[in-house]
Amino acid sequence: MKKDFLYQEISQNIARLIKNNVLKAGDRLPSVRMLCTAHGISMNTAKRVYLELEGQSLIESKPQSGYFVSGRRKLLPLPETSRPLPAGSEEEPEQLIARVYDNMGKPGLTLFSIGVPDQRLLPVARLNKEMIQATRRLSGGGTAYEELQGNEKLRLAIAARSFSWGGSLREKDIITTAGGMNALSFSMMAVSKPGQTIAVESPVYPGILQLARSLGLRVLELPTHPRTGIEPDALKKVLPQIHLCLLVTNFSTPLGSCMPDTHKREVVKLLAERNIPLIEDDLYGDLYFGNSRPSCCKAYDKTGHVLWCSAVSKTLAPGYRVGWVAPGRYKEQLLQLKLSHAISSSAITQEVVAGFLESGRYDHHLRKMRRTLQHNCDHYTQTIAGHFPPGTRTGRPQGGLTLWVELDKRINTTDLYASAIRQHISIAPGRMFTLQQQFENCMRLCFGLPWTDELQHKLQQLGRIAAMQL
Amino acid sequence: MKKDFLYQEISQNIARLIKNNVLKAGDRLPSVRMLCTAHGISMNTAKRVYLELEGQSLIESKPQSGYFVSGRRKLLPLPETSRPLPAGSEEEPEQLIARVYDNMGKPGLTLFSIGVPDQRLLPVARLNKEMIQATRRLSGGGTAYEELQGNEKLRLAIAARSFSWGGSLREKDIITTAGGMNALSFSMMAVSKPGQTIAVESPVYPGILQLARSLGLRVLELPTHPRTGIEPDALKKVLPQIHLCLLVTNFSTPLGSCMPDTHKREVVKLLAERNIPLIEDDLYGDLYFGNSRPSCCKAYDKTGHVLWCSAVSKTLAPGYRVGWVAPGRYKEQLLQLKLSHAISSSAITQEVVAGFLESGRYDHHLRKMRRTLQHNCDHYTQTIAGHFPPGTRTGRPQGGLTLWVELDKRINTTDLYASAIRQHISIAPGRMFTLQQQFENCMRLCFGLPWTDELQHKLQQLGRIAAMQL
Repeated sequence: MKKDFLYQEISQNIARLIKNNVLKAGDRLPSVRMLCTAHGISMNTAKRVYLELEGQSLIESKPQSGYFVSGRRKLLPLPETSRPLPAGSEEEPEQLIARVYDNMGKPGLTLFSIGVPDQRLLPVARLNKEMIQATRRLSGGGTAYEELQGNEKLRLAIAARSFSWGGSLREKDIITTAGGMNALSFSMMAVSKPGQTIAVESPVYPGILQLARSLGLRVLELPTHPRTGIEPDALKKVLPQIHLCLLVTNFSTPLGSCMPDTHKREVVKLLAERNIPLIEDDLYGDLYFGNSRPSCCKAYDKTGHVLWCSAVSKTLAPGYRVGWVAPGRYKEQLLQLKLSHAISSSAITQEVVAGFLESGRYDHHLRKMRRTLQHNCDHYTQTIAGHFPPGTRTGRPQGGLTLWVELDKRINTTDLYASAIRQHISIAPGRMFTLQQQFENCMRLCFGLPWTDELQHKLQQLGRIAAMQL
Repeated sequence: MKKDFLYQEISQNIARLIKNNVLKAGDRLPSVRMLCTAHGISMNTAKRVYLELEGQSLIESKPQSGYFVSGRRKLLPLPETSRPLPAGSEEEPEQLIARVYDNMGKPGLTLFSIGVPDQRLLPVARLNKEMIQATRRLSGGGTAYEELQGNEKLRLAIAARSFSWGGSLREKDIITTAGGMNALSFSMMAVSKPGQTIAVESPVYPGILQLARSLGLRVLELPTHPRTGIEPDALKKVLPQIHLCLLVTNFSTPLGSCMPDTHKREVVKLLAERNIPLIEDDLYGDLYFGNSRPSCCKAYDKTGHVLWCSAVSKTLAPGYRVGWVAPGRYKEQLLQLKLSHAISSSAITQEVVAGFLESGRYDHHLRKMRRTLQHNCDHYTQTIAGHFPPGTRTGRPQGGLTLWVELDKRINTTDLYASAIRQHISIAPGRMFTLQQQFENCMRLCFGLPWTDELQHKLQQLGRIAAMQL
């Protein structure tokens, strides 16, 4: 096709300029729009040029700044877009998941396998103070049932923050839940029936697979790009087969992908045309490394069929179990499910989070936390680039908590897990994140741990263990 | 039948002795065993004699003491055993329930309709202190995920208390949940599939009906005696039709019935023979008025098919959402469901409850609370006996929080609700507690409100409003 030819020609030309040092490390590249004009190509083709060069690690994007020639930092190539089978054999990696989770409780492990920020990144002292104030503010110190829809102050604060991602929620649009997973659970129950099919990313957070299967749903994994998430074209093809869709739109785990605005808008439109509900898991949206928060599919939702879910589990307090959902047109079903399965949420932890958000400390905390995470992520990618065996590729998350690492095809990360755990290192093998036989040379590493010399040594050690598998 | 004849003859004889003042108010009657020996009858026949006399309010049982001729206290007759249709039309009283719940939020109402103890009956100050200590004890002040099975100290304390009802649980047998309803929800999900049939009491707590229907289950309501709960014989007949059973074995709401040990043992045996799981909701077991706590079906469970559920929602802190289940043979399924739908429980409130239970304050608090509730219940029954229209019958709860009131057949309590709410009194109409057209002359009143002159006037006023319906 002409388009294919064009994008390859242009990207090869730019690659040549970089390799010949005409374009130097740190040089800014023309904007996507300028590239369009200069070559008479479409926006999509221009974007594809830069994605291709980024995949080769020749250039890198800086959020809100544009594209630059890669600098001294050595960047490994990106993994390729996943290609799950259209109708995969559904084999849940139950035993592997159970093994990884069971081991995580053992003391003395370096937990690259976790998916939550380390406690040292959380404002624990401040939250403890809020706890005392919350018991004083609440009627009966939080012993009384909260109203069914959830703490009103908390819902007001969440609604106010929705402007940061292009939303315009009101408090009455939001229902609180016992954490983010509980929001996904009620959402899935509200919009699905056993035997129906749900479309998800691939690789995908195993909790989503387990939840879907516990509700008797069939799972369809979609081709997913490590930077931009699911491919709208791939979704389009399977629309007749699916009844609902669940996407982690911003800094998904394990990939760290973030859907571009154009994809978000297109996906919402495609699904709306067929009345297919979209459960949007926006658990990581506040953990962006760039200058501003990415948007949400919910921002483009005109028909109310997007159920926007989030929580403070990745930013503030996993153990509080404070989450929420803006369920759009499914509000009545959500309220009924919450009443039937839970009566109400835990009053005290919601009040603590409401107080923290109201105080304005949340933004301050997030700024600090984002800096730390970005810093950690850079250290991880650099260390991996220097100490992992040839053939290694890494995702390039622009936010979130986790890094996807693809190793040489000959390395099986389930075996690597077994070798690493003997050296007190825990990783999350790629097979955990799919129902199919794929990602067996991949793993997820959490960079929500404080970066120390010891952690660096452990990561280097992991690289050596990986090399020994060859 | 000879047996029928015998029990009637003996009970008529005793009734005559009481009416002729041979047996006087407060006189102790022979024990059930002595009655057997004296008349050469079976234990069951002897018990039936006393149940019959109790139904006529001629005698009353005092827990752990035996039967006595009714005293000066005027006791209204007991409602009869419910007789739901074997295959009822399933019409959920959704709108009625929504109306009652919505109105409950309005200020200035006397809430006879609630199902939780008033805050003034709870140890709020002490719990607030425990909250501060818990944030200090917990790693990260409760921000960290708790282990999947739940707070170990809490599970140890619950296991230790199981001796009080004949159980012998270990901490590893227990999984904590976000409140009692959440325990029922996970239990029902673990042992049922959509389209299956669940047997429950009739009348039954509406949350159980809503939960069952949200999981696509068919509900079969069982004939239920206002003192002794479901009839084992009735259960026996429907065994081939049902796939699971849920019973509130001790001081159920709305009836306040408590299954005798013999019934508990028989029901467990019947269900075990057919491998039918029993979800036992023991939410009210600690709120007994007698000298000792009633047993649980779980105590007779030899095969692990009883899932024993409870919580502190009715005794300590409804808003904390701290509950648990001892799921027997279904432990793995329960853990998987908890992981998939919730990840973990709220860490802080579990630690507070664990601390309170460990301190030994729980028993002290329960003693006080039980005295208050028994006292309130007596006041309610006396006030109703004195101020409600002829034809009124009341349950005779030996524990729990609620009183079942049956009015003259011509009074519709849904209409009564409308009249009462205009006078700022909220009741729970009988139709809320069934999927069938029954209990339309019944209502549930909560006696977990502090007994004051004002409350007494409100109850008398309710009697007058009821009389006006005639």
